[in-house]
Amino acid sequence: MQKKLIVSAVQQPCGDDNPHVNLDFSIAKIREVAAKNADLVVLSELHLGKYFCQTEDHTVFDLAQPIPCETTDILSELAKELSIVIVSTLFERRAAGLYHNTAVVFDKDGSIAGKYRKMHIPDDPAFYEKYYFTPGDLGFTPIETSIGKLGVLICWDQWYPEAARLMALAGADILIYPTAIGWDKNDTKEEQARQLDAWITVQRGHAVANGLPVISCNRIGFETAPNSENGIDFWGNSFITGAQGEFLAHANSTDTQVLIAEIDKKQNETVRRIWPFLRDRRVDAFSDLTKRFID
Amino acid sequence: MQKKLIVSAVQQPCGDDNPHVNLDFSIAKIREVAAKNADLVVLSELHLGKYFCQTEDHTVFDLAQPIPCETTDILSELAKELSIVIVSTLFERRAAGLYHNTAVVFDKDGSIAGKYRKMHIPDDPAFYEKYYFTPGDLGFTPIETSIGKLGVLICWDQWYPEAARLMALAGADILIYPTAIGWDKNDTKEEQARQLDAWITVQRGHAVANGLPVISCNRIGFETAPNSENGIDFWGNSFITGAQGEFLAHANSTDTQVLIAEIDKKQNETVRRIWPFLRDRRVDAFSDLTKRFID
Repeated sequence: MQKKLIVSAVQQPCGDDNPHVNLDFSIAKIREVAAKNADLVVLSELHLGKYFCQTEDHTVFDLAQPIPCETTDILSELAKELSIVIVSTLFERRAAGLYHNTAVVFDKDGSIAGKYRKMHIPDDPAFYEKYYFTPGDLGFTPIETSIGKLGVLICWDQWYPEAARLMALAGADILIYPTAIGWDKNDTKEEQARQLDAWITVQRGHAVANGLPVISCNRIGFETAPNSENGIDFWGNSFITGAQGEFLAHANSTDTQVLIAEIDKKQNETVRRIWPFLRDRRVDAFSDLTKRFID
Repeated sequence: MQKKLIVSAVQQPCGDDNPHVNLDFSIAKIREVAAKNADLVVLSELHLGKYFCQTEDHTVFDLAQPIPCETTDILSELAKELSIVIVSTLFERRAAGLYHNTAVVFDKDGSIAGKYRKMHIPDDPAFYEKYYFTPGDLGFTPIETSIGKLGVLICWDQWYPEAARLMALAGADILIYPTAIGWDKNDTKEEQARQLDAWITVQRGHAVANGLPVISCNRIGFETAPNSENGIDFWGNSFITGAQGEFLAHANSTDTQVLIAEIDKKQNETVRRIWPFLRDRRVDAFSDLTKRFID
């Protein structure tokens, strides 16, 4: 298996009401990175449309699709044509009344290599995800592909060291976070800066703690909530780090940008020899990690 | 219990061969922060002398002390006199052939509030700690003091999200890392920069993931290994962050510096309401965290 990989992320707006417009834009960017020999491309979370969780509305469930569906057929064909691994996140209709926030990984041969159903589901004002998404039941299982094991997690998962660690313990070669996160414009600039920096820092921390590269792909653009002037200002800042958490590529907060970086899986092992954290974990003293709180 | 605390860290060299010289220097700095109304002061790891783990030498065990000992008596008296909580790290002689790297917390009344025995023990060239220190057996248990529950961890622990999380789950109000870490001068400047940044980032990540302030206190100075020109260039960079991982104070890599910051325990709760990570942990899917590897 090849050790050096060219990986990429597409930071873009996803706010058009027509999902085909958003998808066609993504496809154009995937063609762009494929022309630069990318082995892997990551799209942001739920990239087919506006982030619909700003309100609770039962008609929104009409947007959900089974997997496979027309969208996955399109992405399968594209992955095969361009010989590129694609990470897409879709609103999955599993059954009537049962929906997930699901990442689908397409291998270079166009096959669906695997799915990951978002495990940690947020619920905060303007992020009413617990209404829409059933918590994932596929566990923290890396997806095997022709380029390695992909530790695909989604958005809210990015705050949880446990999720990253379990992917690493299961042999992930890269941690991947499609995401949709932004600012509330009512917050102060100082609070906005702290939030963005915390979001970057905690994910870079997962790279460091696990000796793995991280790819985090966010959307951009301001999206209003229905019947409101409020909304979410998606903060972009997609990034790619190496296995010591060092930035290899980093987008800004406003622009469509394609990030490309070369990562070397040999470097994962080099870093883990310098810092052999896995060797020394006190697994004998970790059983309380399965508790909600120790009280 | 008071909500606002003035916390501090003493970054200093600890390389004098006479432990009294190093301790007297620390005491002078503790008096300095106490004069600024500090409630808490953190000293760096094993601050009584040179970092002795650069070689394996059985005569070094002569440096170990039972707890309590003359040093703890001195720090107890000082804590009481100045009405300040002190976090000190000592080479503990528990029994013949049984030694630990142990943090001792002195409360404002001069009592020993508790001990933490370093759980994760490194072993790398120039950091031969597995030879000297038996892994701790007191678990990840915060130490109750008059100013709150202190999640005291030591050095190598700082790379482990599990340790920080267990302290948070057990109710810690602050995460505290006395440490002794530095550069190998044979590494490139780029590698040195990556290492320092990774060390800062992973600890700031623990603040973010757990919604807790972090105090990290490192030593400074170059210390040669016995019979060698090699040695460790201790990189300082002690820091204090708030509960979003934001810097409140940050020292440089070369100078004796006293860091002081005000932290507000109410802010821990505010941050955890904005980002309710503890609510959503998938404890039903975390049992494999007690495995060495999932294979």
